Amino acid sequence: MTEPQAATLSLADLTALVTDILHRAGFAPNQAAALARTIAAGERDACKSHGIYRIEACLRTLKEGKVAADAVPTLTVDDSAIVRVDAMGGFANAAFEAGAPALAERARALGLAALVINDCNHISALWPEIETLTAEGLAAIAMCPSYATVAPTGGSQPLLGTNPFAFGWPRPGKHPYVFDFATSVAARGEIELHRRAGTPIPEGWAVDAQGHPTTDPEAALAGAMLPFGGHKGSAVSTMIELLAAAMIGDLTSPEALAFLDMKTTIAPRHGELILAFCPERFAAGRSGDPFARAETLLDAIAGQGARLPSGRRHAARETALKQGIRLTAAEMAQLDRLRRHGLDAVS
Amino acid sequence: MTEPQAATLSLADLTALVTDILHRAGFAPNQAAALARTIAAGERDACKSHGIYRIEACLRTLKEGKVAADAVPTLTVDDSAIVRVDAMGGFANAAFEAGAPALAERARALGLAALVINDCNHISALWPEIETLTAEGLAAIAMCPSYATVAPTGGSQPLLGTNPFAFGWPRPGKHPYVFDFATSVAARGEIELHRRAGTPIPEGWAVDAQGHPTTDPEAALAGAMLPFGGHKGSAVSTMIELLAAAMIGDLTSPEALAFLDMKTTIAPRHGELILAFCPERFAAGRSGDPFARAETLLDAIAGQGARLPSGRRHAARETALKQGIRLTAAEMAQLDRLRRHGLDAVS
Repeated sequence: MTEPQAATLSLADLTALVTDILHRAGFAPNQAAALARTIAAGERDACKSHGIYRIEACLRTLKEGKVAADAVPTLTVDDSAIVRVDAMGGFANAAFEAGAPALAERARALGLAALVINDCNHISALWPEIETLTAEGLAAIAMCPSYATVAPTGGSQPLLGTNPFAFGWPRPGKHPYVFDFATSVAARGEIELHRRAGTPIPEGWAVDAQGHPTTDPEAALAGAMLPFGGHKGSAVSTMIELLAAAMIGDLTSPEALAFLDMKTTIAPRHGELILAFCPERFAAGRSGDPFARAETLLDAIAGQGARLPSGRRHAARETALKQGIRLTAAEMAQLDRLRRHGLDAVS
Repeated sequence: MTEPQAATLSLADLTALVTDILHRAGFAPNQAAALARTIAAGERDACKSHGIYRIEACLRTLKEGKVAADAVPTLTVDDSAIVRVDAMGGFANAAFEAGAPALAERARALGLAALVINDCNHISALWPEIETLTAEGLAAIAMCPSYATVAPTGGSQPLLGTNPFAFGWPRPGKHPYVFDFATSVAARGEIELHRRAGTPIPEGWAVDAQGHPTTDPEAALAGAMLPFGGHKGSAVSTMIELLAAAMIGDLTSPEALAFLDMKTTIAPRHGELILAFCPERFAAGRSGDPFARAETLLDAIAGQGARLPSGRRHAARETALKQGIRLTAAEMAQLDRLRRHGLDAVS
């Protein structure tokens, strides 16, 4: 047997390879393909934290019996502004794909609509979903809880999730304006990297188990992370728990952590809320094309040297779509190992 | 003539007094009454920055010819999820009151609806509007641009407004969960207070006209304020420009500043976007009452000693509704002067 070598794959080939790995590990074709599209998009955009690195967590979640490998999402559409998809305990990816066309249709019909995803496991960034909607000419907001690792500002105990908040605005002929950020000041993985490196974390990232500020990564991991932006970020994170958990009848971050049996190396179960806005309906024929006026603003931001969010990711995508996606020998070996051993490859 | 004395007024009496001042200064009854309700609510909640202090700005805006004193807001409702109110160049307060019942009706009918206010002048906090909707049992998000005083993170020039973002969740039998914050790290008025006191501003609040970080309030006022929470807050502020200005066909913060002829002591003209969510429709009969589940989360926040936003404001309201609203002799003298001299009292 030859050792895997570094390789350059097309997006289609990488998607097929990841689909194959997930399918062999036990995921039904619909679940495997939707997950693979998202994971390959992460690699395409050089967003390694949401690329093939996530495959192991998918397999671990299945091995722990915390996700349904063959879930068929069920779509409910009526004449309201709310489209619902029950993920039936599968990953959010297939559920989003099942609901996105109806969400776009409702947003165009009514001007504004929401997609509620219930009972899904979540492993992905929100920007792939946002960019599906901006590609339809819609503006979009997405949010979901996570599992409890963040103390509310002024508190000391993990209660909120890292609760991502994402937004997108379509830019005709250009990549969309997209942001997608955790409402914690840092990601848990960043603290873990400091722990492994033996370096202190910056002040303001976390508190220890007694609620005192700490720069010790061990103490931080045993304590709680902090929200970005002080009480304002804490408020946004709380809003996400209320709208994208309590309101939609799905798990809050403390409930999601309990569902995981506190095993935070697997994908949490919760819901998701996505809002889609039809700019033409909102502009309603008032003077000035909303897309052109948005360009004036965005050009003025970039014109003073401020970075637009997702710019690096979109630049990486341009390169990957021309030149392919480069994976190291170690990454190819890891994919090979996961493909051959499936659930036995993860603990 | 006797000198005005300190006084304790009922909410109704203060509202009537402020209405009278605004009416005598030239505002039509509908504009005066709606403004007065909001201003009196600010005093009731000990939110002095949005109380009677704002009356002068209302009068200055009228004196400068930048607001229509007799505007009658026009409401447009159709079978979509978007309710529109054209403020006709008047203040937002009367426009919101004209649109709120239709917004609530649409949100209950469709699950989710939006109120777009166009061509309004804006002097108020967003929480009075949010609390009107939570009193209807709805969750709500409100946002609007302002006038360009904030540089995007990584930039150096004023471009974004202080762009407030507000949210509310109804708590049956209790005051709602409400936040309402500027997306700048500090309010412009706070920097002005440091300038008057001759004290430096904290690091991270502002940059000077060359884009360099400064703690000098004079340099900050000549430069630009910074968004809260670094690039994340900057992104939220940009989202507000896109959704609540470009998308709804109304002025962005740079355009609003131009409309003011750069006079930032008067109320800016722009639009506003308010989203209303019907929790029962979103919960759709899933297990667990959304309001009860929200209480579990909010109790867990307060239970670890973290402050819920608006708590101080709601406590002040309880006191004011029992004991009346206390105004100092200087405040009563100022109200008397404004009542007697109208537009001549302001420059």
